[in-house]
Amino acid sequence: MSFDLVLFGGTGDLAWRKLVPALFQAFRHGTLPAGGRIIGVGRDTLDDDRYRALIQERFHQVEGDKRPQAAQEFERFAQMLHYVRADLSKAEDYAPIRECLHTRQADTVVLYVATAPALFIPVVEQLAAAGLNDERTRIVLEKPLGHDLPSHRAINAAVRRCFSERQVFRIDHYLGKPSVQNLFALRFGNALFEPLWRRETIANIQILIAEELGVEKRGAFYDQTGALRDMVQNHALQLLCALAMEPPINAHADAIRDEKLKVLRSLKSWTPQTLENHVVRGQYTAGRIGGIDVPGYRDESGVQPHSGTETFVALRAEIANWRWAGVPFYIRTGKRLAQRDARIVVNFRPAPHSIFQSPVGCVNQLVIKLQPQDGLELHLLSQAEARGQSSTISLAPVQLDLDFDKRFGAGRVGAYERLLLDAIDGRLNLFVRSDEQEEAWQWVEPLLDHWRNDAQGPRPYAAGTWGPSASSAMIARDGHCWNEEA
Amino acid sequence: MSFDLVLFGGTGDLAWRKLVPALFQAFRHGTLPAGGRIIGVGRDTLDDDRYRALIQERFHQVEGDKRPQAAQEFERFAQMLHYVRADLSKAEDYAPIRECLHTRQADTVVLYVATAPALFIPVVEQLAAAGLNDERTRIVLEKPLGHDLPSHRAINAAVRRCFSERQVFRIDHYLGKPSVQNLFALRFGNALFEPLWRRETIANIQILIAEELGVEKRGAFYDQTGALRDMVQNHALQLLCALAMEPPINAHADAIRDEKLKVLRSLKSWTPQTLENHVVRGQYTAGRIGGIDVPGYRDESGVQPHSGTETFVALRAEIANWRWAGVPFYIRTGKRLAQRDARIVVNFRPAPHSIFQSPVGCVNQLVIKLQPQDGLELHLLSQAEARGQSSTISLAPVQLDLDFDKRFGAGRVGAYERLLLDAIDGRLNLFVRSDEQEEAWQWVEPLLDHWRNDAQGPRPYAAGTWGPSASSAMIARDGHCWNEEA
Repeated sequence: MSFDLVLFGGTGDLAWRKLVPALFQAFRHGTLPAGGRIIGVGRDTLDDDRYRALIQERFHQVEGDKRPQAAQEFERFAQMLHYVRADLSKAEDYAPIRECLHTRQADTVVLYVATAPALFIPVVEQLAAAGLNDERTRIVLEKPLGHDLPSHRAINAAVRRCFSERQVFRIDHYLGKPSVQNLFALRFGNALFEPLWRRETIANIQILIAEELGVEKRGAFYDQTGALRDMVQNHALQLLCALAMEPPINAHADAIRDEKLKVLRSLKSWTPQTLENHVVRGQYTAGRIGGIDVPGYRDESGVQPHSGTETFVALRAEIANWRWAGVPFYIRTGKRLAQRDARIVVNFRPAPHSIFQSPVGCVNQLVIKLQPQDGLELHLLSQAEARGQSSTISLAPVQLDLDFDKRFGAGRVGAYERLLLDAIDGRLNLFVRSDEQEEAWQWVEPLLDHWRNDAQGPRPYAAGTWGPSASSAMIARDGHCWNEEA
Repeated sequence: MSFDLVLFGGTGDLAWRKLVPALFQAFRHGTLPAGGRIIGVGRDTLDDDRYRALIQERFHQVEGDKRPQAAQEFERFAQMLHYVRADLSKAEDYAPIRECLHTRQADTVVLYVATAPALFIPVVEQLAAAGLNDERTRIVLEKPLGHDLPSHRAINAAVRRCFSERQVFRIDHYLGKPSVQNLFALRFGNALFEPLWRRETIANIQILIAEELGVEKRGAFYDQTGALRDMVQNHALQLLCALAMEPPINAHADAIRDEKLKVLRSLKSWTPQTLENHVVRGQYTAGRIGGIDVPGYRDESGVQPHSGTETFVALRAEIANWRWAGVPFYIRTGKRLAQRDARIVVNFRPAPHSIFQSPVGCVNQLVIKLQPQDGLELHLLSQAEARGQSSTISLAPVQLDLDFDKRFGAGRVGAYERLLLDAIDGRLNLFVRSDEQEEAWQWVEPLLDHWRNDAQGPRPYAAGTWGPSASSAMIARDGHCWNEEA
């Protein structure tokens, strides 16, 4: 199968940091179909050789493998790289792209749009106008697809006018992570979880996506975005869907996406009360992480000195259906938190009738670790080792562990590697459908509106902590607390 | 609290192999109440010093600790040891025992009866006749308590005439193992298991008690006993009760024993069909274990050359109640099997609707390991690591692990240490009530009767294998198979 993969934004950060390295990994793993072309499109004046050299040079900055063998492999891989100069804001610049694609008729054309958000609509429309939307073409769209519900709808409308839904691959790279795909496998490949996976047994579910990093060089972009748009609207809600969805009728893309959509539609809408009590936004101030002093958010380059952008969000969602009514789903994400840690914690209810002496605050937990390690922990209570002559049995916490890297070996297929291969092969399972995205935007929109009109602004928290104390107060009001890494 | 612990059979194997070492461990752990006496009773003519010397000498054979410190500790411990010469078949020999106990009025007197089974009734009656059954006295009875239902009933009747039930501590040393006690803690200290612990979710439960050892020096005894009496009637059925019982109303001895009794009473009685199809007995022939040639059972010393005694039993039990109806409980135990391994495997039903590609024969399992290591394994299916371009998600087996020794440190409280301390302190939880034992005898009695009249005899199996193939055929008829150690 021959393919042409066109990277719009071919000289950009995402291309050389993530996409080309992911394609190289697939090439090394022997899973990238032979006879393909990877065509970078950018505004710089380059030819194929200079593009290859540019990519290779930048690539060496991110790739640790300095062996001559790796360099030789890259050389062979680089033969797939090509370059077309184009200013995507100019209609006439689409002609050379079309020409390049017409030099041969590849079985599949993948248009990967990783450009400035403002260019999404013109690019999509120009591609269609240039006839680059035929049957064999797929378009991959990188987030952010819009800035709010109206802008998202406008993009979606344009995409829909130009491409049919099954041609559109909306990336949420979290869905490409093996640990996230595994959520589906665990829930629906094991009979064990289904009887437990419901309001009768589960007290609450916590989704944590914590970063140690600050905004790095993306200050100007991030200041326009914030944690809600950057993490909650997409990644966190996708995790929530994978956790909460009903068993799909089969493993096909639409069956899974239908069920995820139902979850999003079941999310309780915000009310003035819940906007006040069930969400906390924060912004980091200067602090220390790993023994190093780091600046506050407002001192980051590209950030407005009086910025009101949130770098932290904690919220409580509730799903109004038979399975989940009354079970809080807590989402917490932020930059400059105490450590890099993405995990899902399923907190089970305590035993209804306790005949033993239990340690305070210990409940059964299933911990699904996504980052930095990928693993499972099952926290139980067992008989404590008692040497004394106690006549009551005391319980002590124990845990069962599973480390996926140990099980399957390190160097698993990365998120972008997986997703790019899926796009080339036309597998939509791990991509987000337009109605899902729209529903997610619809749910977060009231938060954006509320914050726009809220004079208080985000609460400060010192870099290196777990966010503003209001976040702990929020969950404490429910009688729960955040599960933090030991 | 002062105590006198009288070991009837004080020079016997059990005393120096198990009981005195267990008491010494408790002494070292600081849990043996100070001011106690341990009084060995035997037919040899010894005084306290020579008894101490005898125990110390034999003790060194079993105790690995050769440090001078250990010798000093033993010296101090040995001051608790005393000796009374008595032939327990002679009424007049009980007078010196009484005298010894009357030299001081200990708060608690524990009479530990580990004598030849034939002596049980006379010993119990003589103790009562000598007035050694007052309020502060407890009697500990070692198995085998009888040879069949009538002989068991006779012993129980004698015990009941002489002691009240709350004075009687019937030992099943399996109940003293931390891993077995932990069964109660796991089931009733965790909310997680209860929704899963039922016929809707569980396909079958397997109880394995496999020994590598043969009959060793106990050939003559074992040849009169067999695997059914030695392991099934007591240990295996106690494990079955702990697995199958309903949640008790509290953790007191009688609440737990009431629930275990209900399980025994719910065991489906044997029919001519099930006697034929749901039980397999075997007897080992010569073979190799761990690279060493070992003799067949009939060539063991003390064993009759044409012995029909079973050294292996596999059977299928069923519990006729709402929770378990239709779920097979398979028990398998034997000597000279492929490896020493005691474990319980809970096999869950497969997912009712499979949307992924599952490896054949893989189901969710909870493995409770009792011996040689004490641990938990939870076997699940996860997404297989797929590098290829498969459009179906394949599952692969993974397991979560917990090693109790790692969690709590090695050198946990041993079974006899726990049970002796419990007897001294009057805690009945881990001892078996007479009605439980009688019910268990009643359930195995038809098997004994059937075998007595069955000309076929036990099926041969080579030492070092997993028993006769008829055992695998038995479980295969249900569509299941034995879970064997990987």
